[in-house]
Amino acid sequence: MDKIKLKAPATIANLSCGFDILGLCLNNPYDEIEVIKSNDTNIIIDSIDSPFSNIPTDPKENTGGIPALLIQKDLKLNFGFKIVIKKGIPLSSGLGSSAATAVGVVYGINQILGNVLTEEKMLMYALEGEKISSLTPHADNIGPCLKGGLILIKNTSPVDLIRLPIGPFTLVVLQPKIKIDTKMAREILPKKIDLSKAVKQWGNVSSLTYGFTVNDIDLIKKSMHDVIIEPVRAKLINGYNKLKNAALDSGAIGCSISGSGPSIFALCENDENADKTMLAMENKSKELKIKYNIYKSSINHSGPQIVR
Amino acid sequence: MDKIKLKAPATIANLSCGFDILGLCLNNPYDEIEVIKSNDTNIIIDSIDSPFSNIPTDPKENTGGIPALLIQKDLKLNFGFKIVIKKGIPLSSGLGSSAATAVGVVYGINQILGNVLTEEKMLMYALEGEKISSLTPHADNIGPCLKGGLILIKNTSPVDLIRLPIGPFTLVVLQPKIKIDTKMAREILPKKIDLSKAVKQWGNVSSLTYGFTVNDIDLIKKSMHDVIIEPVRAKLINGYNKLKNAALDSGAIGCSISGSGPSIFALCENDENADKTMLAMENKSKELKIKYNIYKSSINHSGPQIVR
Repeated sequence: MDKIKLKAPATIANLSCGFDILGLCLNNPYDEIEVIKSNDTNIIIDSIDSPFSNIPTDPKENTGGIPALLIQKDLKLNFGFKIVIKKGIPLSSGLGSSAATAVGVVYGINQILGNVLTEEKMLMYALEGEKISSLTPHADNIGPCLKGGLILIKNTSPVDLIRLPIGPFTLVVLQPKIKIDTKMAREILPKKIDLSKAVKQWGNVSSLTYGFTVNDIDLIKKSMHDVIIEPVRAKLINGYNKLKNAALDSGAIGCSISGSGPSIFALCENDENADKTMLAMENKSKELKIKYNIYKSSINHSGPQIVR
Repeated sequence: MDKIKLKAPATIANLSCGFDILGLCLNNPYDEIEVIKSNDTNIIIDSIDSPFSNIPTDPKENTGGIPALLIQKDLKLNFGFKIVIKKGIPLSSGLGSSAATAVGVVYGINQILGNVLTEEKMLMYALEGEKISSLTPHADNIGPCLKGGLILIKNTSPVDLIRLPIGPFTLVVLQPKIKIDTKMAREILPKKIDLSKAVKQWGNVSSLTYGFTVNDIDLIKKSMHDVIIEPVRAKLINGYNKLKNAALDSGAIGCSISGSGPSIFALCENDENADKTMLAMENKSKELKIKYNIYKSSINHSGPQIVR
């Protein structure tokens, strides 16, 4: 195989009360990534057709270029790659945009190399790529992006990921068109939190984990409450509480901030409820004069998908 | 029915990383409680045969007397009860001694009354009884004592308890013969904790919950780590780390402090391993010149058991 084209999916990190530990993989939106083996040893990043202008094309500064360079060096490859990135996931949206590029490139190169990398190695290379956009990379986007499904990030170093069961939900993701810097979104978090709130949070995490495992919708609904991170980050998103209430009032099981925001996700029981929730969130955005992108997605259970 | 005799079981609250949210019911040790309907309206507490001398016999000061008085008042009963309490669970041991008495009395009275109280009401009365020994009663002993099994305390007010699955483990509980005051054991806890440690803890709580649900011993083993409460309370228990290591070295899945201590519990895969763990913990206690009681117990899945 000399070239491959694939979809690298968006992910929701910080799934409600599961800050830094629960990540979920979506089918939509996604980046389209093409990796083409070349005869010379250059790593070339091409981002034609991308609706975002500021993706670095220097591979040393690109979230996909870095892992490509590392793999080339570690495996002593005597050839290079042309990497064509068509971003479908908005940057700095809280939807794992940089993780998707990193995972997509690693996944594509691994396919071309005949599947020589272990999952652990792939995660490690993708994490190295993500470092360029986040000083403290977590596996909470990388993990679910590569593996698909609902992933518990038990440990980051060494990476220890656990797949949790999750039912056939539909997600609605509204991305307000504002920029939130990931580093800043982390810096505003308190270094210390009340023990009493932490107890509340890990009670919710326990029942959410169990709720997903046995697919108990009522239990999931009453467990999807983040009493620590969401109240702090909500302040960065104009109209957040109104948008969340619009989702919940239209029947969504739960609603919270995706990653470090500004995207807002709603977990819906089925496609029909997702349509209703989507409409309610759109209407509320218009009422509040908030510009947005909006996506509806089923859960992606397998990670990157080969297009050809 | 005019009288009933029952066993009210010991419980392990604060199951490892599940501080204030996970409680487990044991078959051993237990209190033996007899409730006898009387013709006059007196509530009489009798603690003959108890190996502990300081149980108050004034019903207004007794953890079982208070719920008896409350039930009598609320239901406008024109009769009273003689309550005979034979303590098998050491007081202030971290094994839910006062909760067992409270639950046992409420359960016994409810049986005599023909099962008129809802589970919620029973929990409420038992919690009122526990208030006498703890200013901030949690349902983390009361809940598993009444219901049996592994209980997630989702909320205390109103009480919301969720039964989690748990496999056929055997527990070893070593009770060093020292007194730790419950209030003091709570006061030494930090009011605020590092967010990073809280994240570690709720990652462990999530994987422990999932591990118990699917009975994945390896996952349970690597999740039974309390990075917040245990390091603080361990200092109150002479030889704690050595006793814990003795349990783990002999093959226990996990080991931590029961309730607010000083009891130390070890979760063992089966009876054979429990025997080995018990011997190791006993030997270590003798080596350290620590006086102790030690118990081996299967998991109690149904709460109080009627003797006759």
